[in-house]
Amino acid sequence: ESCQYTIIFHCMAALSERGSAPVSETSPYEMVRSQELNALLGPKASMQAVDLLCDLHNTTANTGLCLITYSDRDWICLHICKHLQREMASTPVRYVHFDIPLNEAYSLDSVGKHGFAMEIGPQPHGVVRSVIFSAMQEGVQLMMDWICQFNSGTLFEGGWVDVYTMVKNIDYPRDSETHVITAAVHPDLQDRDFCLLHPGDPMFLCFSGETLRYRGKEALYPFFINEGAYYEKGVALSLARKRRVQIPSVRSETLR
Amino acid sequence: ESCQYTIIFHCMAALSERGSAPVSETSPYEMVRSQELNALLGPKASMQAVDLLCDLHNTTANTGLCLITYSDRDWICLHICKHLQREMASTPVRYVHFDIPLNEAYSLDSVGKHGFAMEIGPQPHGVVRSVIFSAMQEGVQLMMDWICQFNSGTLFEGGWVDVYTMVKNIDYPRDSETHVITAAVHPDLQDRDFCLLHPGDPMFLCFSGETLRYRGKEALYPFFINEGAYYEKGVALSLARKRRVQIPSVRSETLR
Repeated sequence: ESCQYTIIFHCMAALSERGSAPVSETSPYEMVRSQELNALLGPKASMQAVDLLCDLHNTTANTGLCLITYSDRDWICLHICKHLQREMASTPVRYVHFDIPLNEAYSLDSVGKHGFAMEIGPQPHGVVRSVIFSAMQEGVQLMMDWICQFNSGTLFEGGWVDVYTMVKNIDYPRDSETHVITAAVHPDLQDRDFCLLHPGDPMFLCFSGETLRYRGKEALYPFFINEGAYYEKGVALSLARKRRVQIPSVRSETLR
Repeated sequence: ESCQYTIIFHCMAALSERGSAPVSETSPYEMVRSQELNALLGPKASMQAVDLLCDLHNTTANTGLCLITYSDRDWICLHICKHLQREMASTPVRYVHFDIPLNEAYSLDSVGKHGFAMEIGPQPHGVVRSVIFSAMQEGVQLMMDWICQFNSGTLFEGGWVDVYTMVKNIDYPRDSETHVITAAVHPDLQDRDFCLLHPGDPMFLCFSGETLRYRGKEALYPFFINEGAYYEKGVALSLARKRRVQIPSVRSETLR
């Protein structure tokens, strides 16, 4: 059995999985569309779902290229990540793990048997930056190359992959009464995605001039720092814990 | 007589001056609002118009701080520019001149007796970057300081200001039949606003991999390179000619 793959150019992580909610004439477009996609590519968690689903995203945050997944033990996704890390010279490639149950996962890639979002930044929304576009193109091509080699029976050696597991989100500071945002990401933190943030490091610079610092007890890795689409979600940045995950050698037959 | 000033936080250059078109119940919001603002701050080209109107903008292009005007001989605007250039240590400040008749000018600042847009970048739309926010804040404060000093009778020495006069806009390369964009701004040009572009320099990198070069006969200064809001206007970048303009010493009395 070979690995089928589907690439969906889906711009926003707005797919919500509500398989049980009936669709009516007045349902929001996003809900209708999510059910259409689930029928086309899934159904999620079924035998009919596509083998691998990759959802392409871009962000205003300086993330480089990230594979965002709901599993830290999906050898297919981890091997693809390792392949991209090995082959992409000028773009950092990282594996991000959202540790939530699959039935709570809201993004399109969760519909496939294996899947991830390929997220790349920094790029303003509504803009194509040539270097970012080329890196995404290279990432997609390398993923497809890996699948072709895997389907041809190539053995991929095991090894280690750094996994960034999301621990929590941090909101912008807000006025306690009006909830209006009162600070921007601190210049020392802006664009420093995946650079270790230590307790006491500057986190926000208030419009009043005051610096607010990271008050956590544990040094963690910030990412999605100042992503434009997350203001409305109340997320100024996310924090992750890094650890190394060992992956086995894989060959097509071993996964049957 | 002192100089009155009004600062309008107006995000998009969407004000169109159609003083003669009657407003009805079905008029687009932008047209209704432009007439409200014209009544409030103008009427444009009348004795009742405010003395100075500054309209604050931000852009995805790496412009630094620009004063964008419709005049290359407005001593108020030129002196404010000189003041900002002298006082702002870490932000480049430039004077941009759109050489079109005032009655064709579509932006809010054209309603005042004197006026300019204060444009700053790079910043993605929908995002606040702390360094950009602080630079805008400093620019606005310095402008108001200048006005206060001017109103107090301070003499401002004359001198020279570099003026960038817009010569033409360049659209993205497009498919001749579908008009779909076929290239992004070349990595060698991206973010190099106000760096002289010579004939033969790379301008676009096609999605096919081909490099397209600047075919003009004259070296010019590119600006608004890859501004997100200008894709729909068919503008990938603008080109300007630079020259030095001499400005006289000014003091409040001399302008009565």
